[in-house]
Amino acid sequence: MLAAAGIVLTAAERAAIEVADFGLGRLEQTGLQIVVYINTERVCAKELVLFPHQTCPEHRHPPVGDDPGKEETFRCRHGLVRLHVAGEDEIVLRPGEQWTIPPDTLHSFEAGDEGAIVSEFSTRSRDDTDVFTDPRIVR
Amino acid sequence: MLAAAGIVLTAAERAAIEVADFGLGRLEQTGLQIVVYINTERVCAKELVLFPHQTCPEHRHPPVGDDPGKEETFRCRHGLVRLHVAGEDEIVLRPGEQWTIPPDTLHSFEAGDEGAIVSEFSTRSRDDTDVFTDPRIVR
Repeated sequence: MLAAAGIVLTAAERAAIEVADFGLGRLEQTGLQIVVYINTERVCAKELVLFPHQTCPEHRHPPVGDDPGKEETFRCRHGLVRLHVAGEDEIVLRPGEQWTIPPDTLHSFEAGDEGAIVSEFSTRSRDDTDVFTDPRIVR
Repeated sequence: MLAAAGIVLTAAERAAIEVADFGLGRLEQTGLQIVVYINTERVCAKELVLFPHQTCPEHRHPPVGDDPGKEETFRCRHGLVRLHVAGEDEIVLRPGEQWTIPPDTLHSFEAGDEGAIVSEFSTRSRDDTDVFTDPRIVR
C-alpha cells in the first residue's frame, strides 16, 4: 500500500513498522500501522496506514512539563480519512488535504472504503502520555 | 515531477509553489522549488523539488530569541541528493534515506542527474533569518 502510493521505505523501516491494536485485540477494526521517520525532542514525522474502516480511537496529547502537548498535522496521501476533532464538525480529508490538531484536543479518525495513508507532521511523540477516552486502552 | 512521485497537491498548493533563486538569477543552477504544507510556531513540513544538479547554497539557521534555530530532517523521496553538512563527509541520500541537520549548522545540497524530491520535516521556518555564506544571496 505504501509502495503503491510512491512511498519508499528502507529495509530497516519496513522491519520496524509499528502495529498498534491499543490493547483491544481487534486490530482490523481498531488499530493503526505506523512508520516513524523521525522523532526528536522537537519534531516528529510519521506515515499512518489504515485498513478500510480501521479506526484510531479518541485520545488527546496532554502537556508534559514545559511541552504544551503534541501538535499534529494530518495530511491525507491516499484513500480517505474521516477526522473527528473536539469542537469541529466531521472533517473529511482526501489526497492532498490536511488538518492541524492543536495540543491537548480530543480527536479520533477512521479510514474510508479503500483505507488511507496519512502523513503526520508534529512536535515530539510521547505515546505513553496520551490520554484515551476508552479506559480499556493500553498504548 | 511531484505527481510522478505519487505526491498529490491541492490546486491552492500548486498555485503557491515557491520558486527561490536566492537573488542570483540563475535558477537552473542555484535554486529550489518549494511546497510548504505547514509552518506553525512549532512544526514545518515541505517538499523540496530540485532540477538535475540544481544546488541550494550553503547556509545555516541561527538561534532566534528562545528558539535555538531550525532543526531539519531531509528525507529523499525521488532521485538523489548530495548533502554537505559542516563536520560530516558528503552524505548521499537515495529514496527512503534521510539525515537530520542540527540547528545553526552550515549545510548545502545538490540534486543528482535526475533531480530530486526531498521531504523536509523541521521546526518553524523563518527564511528571513537564514545566514548564507555567499554575501550576494538575498532570501
